[in-house]
Amino acid sequence: MNIDMIRAAAARLDGHARRTPLLGSPFLDEIAGRRVLVKSECLQHTGSFKYRGARAALTALDPATRARGVIAFSSGNHAQGVALAARELGVAALIVMPSDAPKLKIANTRALGAEVVLYDRATEDRDAIGARLAGERGLTLVKPFDEPEVIAGQGTVGLEIAAQAAAMGIERAEVLVPCGGGGLTSGIALALEAEAPGFRVRPCEPEGFDDTRRSLAAGEIRTNAQMTGSICDAIVTPSPGKLTFPIMHRLCGPGLAVSDDDCLHAMALAFTRLKIVIEPGGAVALAAALWHGDDLTRETAIVVASGGNVDAALFREALERFG
Amino acid sequence: MNIDMIRAAAARLDGHARRTPLLGSPFLDEIAGRRVLVKSECLQHTGSFKYRGARAALTALDPATRARGVIAFSSGNHAQGVALAARELGVAALIVMPSDAPKLKIANTRALGAEVVLYDRATEDRDAIGARLAGERGLTLVKPFDEPEVIAGQGTVGLEIAAQAAAMGIERAEVLVPCGGGGLTSGIALALEAEAPGFRVRPCEPEGFDDTRRSLAAGEIRTNAQMTGSICDAIVTPSPGKLTFPIMHRLCGPGLAVSDDDCLHAMALAFTRLKIVIEPGGAVALAAALWHGDDLTRETAIVVASGGNVDAALFREALERFG
Repeated sequence: MNIDMIRAAAARLDGHARRTPLLGSPFLDEIAGRRVLVKSECLQHTGSFKYRGARAALTALDPATRARGVIAFSSGNHAQGVALAARELGVAALIVMPSDAPKLKIANTRALGAEVVLYDRATEDRDAIGARLAGERGLTLVKPFDEPEVIAGQGTVGLEIAAQAAAMGIERAEVLVPCGGGGLTSGIALALEAEAPGFRVRPCEPEGFDDTRRSLAAGEIRTNAQMTGSICDAIVTPSPGKLTFPIMHRLCGPGLAVSDDDCLHAMALAFTRLKIVIEPGGAVALAAALWHGDDLTRETAIVVASGGNVDAALFREALERFG
Repeated sequence: MNIDMIRAAAARLDGHARRTPLLGSPFLDEIAGRRVLVKSECLQHTGSFKYRGARAALTALDPATRARGVIAFSSGNHAQGVALAARELGVAALIVMPSDAPKLKIANTRALGAEVVLYDRATEDRDAIGARLAGERGLTLVKPFDEPEVIAGQGTVGLEIAAQAAAMGIERAEVLVPCGGGGLTSGIALALEAEAPGFRVRPCEPEGFDDTRRSLAAGEIRTNAQMTGSICDAIVTPSPGKLTFPIMHRLCGPGLAVSDDDCLHAMALAFTRLKIVIEPGGAVALAAALWHGDDLTRETAIVVASGGNVDAALFREALERFG
C-alpha cells in the first residue's frame, strides 16, 4: 500500500470520478473560529466517495477475472458505488444487502443494474450466503475498505485536496475525515503524506461508535460495543481494518467524536451555507470542525463531506430542528 | 456588449468566482428522456450566480469611482453578491431592501458587511430613496441585470458550460436558463454564440410570470400582469431589460414556463439525485427539462441551477410533497 497505487488509481479514475469542489463560507468560518473548507464528496457519482474505491478495485482486476463479475456486501453507499462501476465496465454485480436496508438504497442499487440478494440480519449468515453465491458463479469479492485497491481509490480524494489547497496557498491544515472502517481516512492520509506533508488527518466518528478513536489512543484495534443506535449508519463498523489501522496509527492525529445532534446541526448549516446535502455519517467531520474546535490545532480545517444519501424524512428533521 | 467583454470579465473573476460543477444522474436522464446536465450555480459564492455579475461590475469601475462605494436595490441574491464583492474589494456597499424581504437574506447581506436600508414597498419610493443616498455619498448604482458589465459577468457561466461540455464531447445541446430580467440568459447566449455554436439557449420562467417567453413570441417587450404570487421570487421581474431583450431575441429559442409544483418537485429530485439545494426560481430550468421535454429538440439538455437561497420551511415542504 503506497502512494504509487493511489496515483495509479487516480489515472484510472480520470474522466470518470468527479473532481468534487472544495467549498467554504464566511458564515461557517465564523462559527468554527477558523477557516473551514468542505471537500464535497456528496457530489460524487452515486452520492458518496465509495464510487472511487469501487471503480479503482474493478479496474485493477485482470480482465478475465473481472468478466466473471463481482460481489459486495453493503447496506448502502458501497453497494451503489460497486453497482455503477460494474455497469460502466459492463460486468455483472451481485450485492448482498440486509432486508432492512433503506428501501431507496435497495431500489437505487437495482436501478444501477446490480442483482440484489436480501438476507435477514437476525437469522441468516451474510458471509455464508455470499461465499456460496461467489463460489457458484466465480465472482470476485470487492471489500468495502480493507482492500489495497479500494484504499487507493479513496486516496484520490487526498490527491485532490492537496492540489486544491495548494492552489489556494494553504500549506498547513488539519484534514477531518468521516471514519468507518478507515478506507477513506487511510487513503487520504497516505496521499497527503506524499503530497502535502504540512497536513494532518483527524478521523471523525459518532459518539458511542468511536472504535477508531479508541484504537488510535490504545495503539491497538478496539471494537464498538454495539452496531446499532446511531443515525450515522454509513460509518458504523465493528472496528478499523487490519490494513487501514496501521496506516492511520502511523499518520493520523487523535480521533474526534461527535453527537447525533451535532451531525443534524451540521447538515442544516451545510444546507443553508453551502447548498449541499450531507447524510449524517458524512457530516461528522463538519460537525467536529464547527463544535470541537478546541481539539484542533491549526488555522485551517479541511473537512470531507463523504456522502449525501439521506432519506428526505431525516433531512426534514434536521431542517426543522436546526434550519 | 460582446464576447470580448465576457472574456475580460472571466479574467477578472479568475481565482474568485467558483468554477461550478456540471452534475448529472442517470435517474434524471431517465425521467427526462434525454441526457440532463446541471450547471450548479447554487454552489457559487453567496449561493447564486449573482456574485459573478456583481464582482465583474465592481472590478470594471475606475478605482476612484469604486472607492466612493456602490449602491444596489435587491430583495435577495443580487444584494448578497454585491455585498460580498464589495467587501472583497474593500469598498462600501449600501443595499436598499424591502422591509418584507426574507429575514435571512437581510441578515446575510448585513453579515457580509453591507449597510442595509429598509423601505416599505407600500408607502415609500425605492428609487427616490436610492437616488438621495447615492447623491449624498457619491455611490455608483450596480443594476441587477440591464447593465453591460453585469451581463458580461453572468456570461462567464456560459464560457464554463462551453468548456465543460466540450470536455465531455457534447457538440449540440439546448441550454435551459432561469430567466428574470435576462442578465444571466443573455450573457450565456452571447458566450455560447462564440464558444459553442451548436448550443441554443431557452429561457425558463414560472407560469403567469412569463414576460420573456411572451416577449420573445411577440418580438417586442411584454410585461407581467402581476409581480407577486409566485414562489420563484428571485426571477420575478416586470419585463426583460432594454439591453437583454434584443440579445435574447436574436439568439434564444422559444421560452418555457413551468408551474410552482414542477419547481418544488425538481428541487426534491435535485436533493435526492444530485445532493444540491436549489431555490424555486433556480429550479425552473431543471423542471422544464424534466417535464416539458416535448418542447425540447435536442438529445442533451444543459440546465442552469441558478441559486440555492431557499428558506428551510419551503425546502421541507418540497421534500414532504415530492421527496
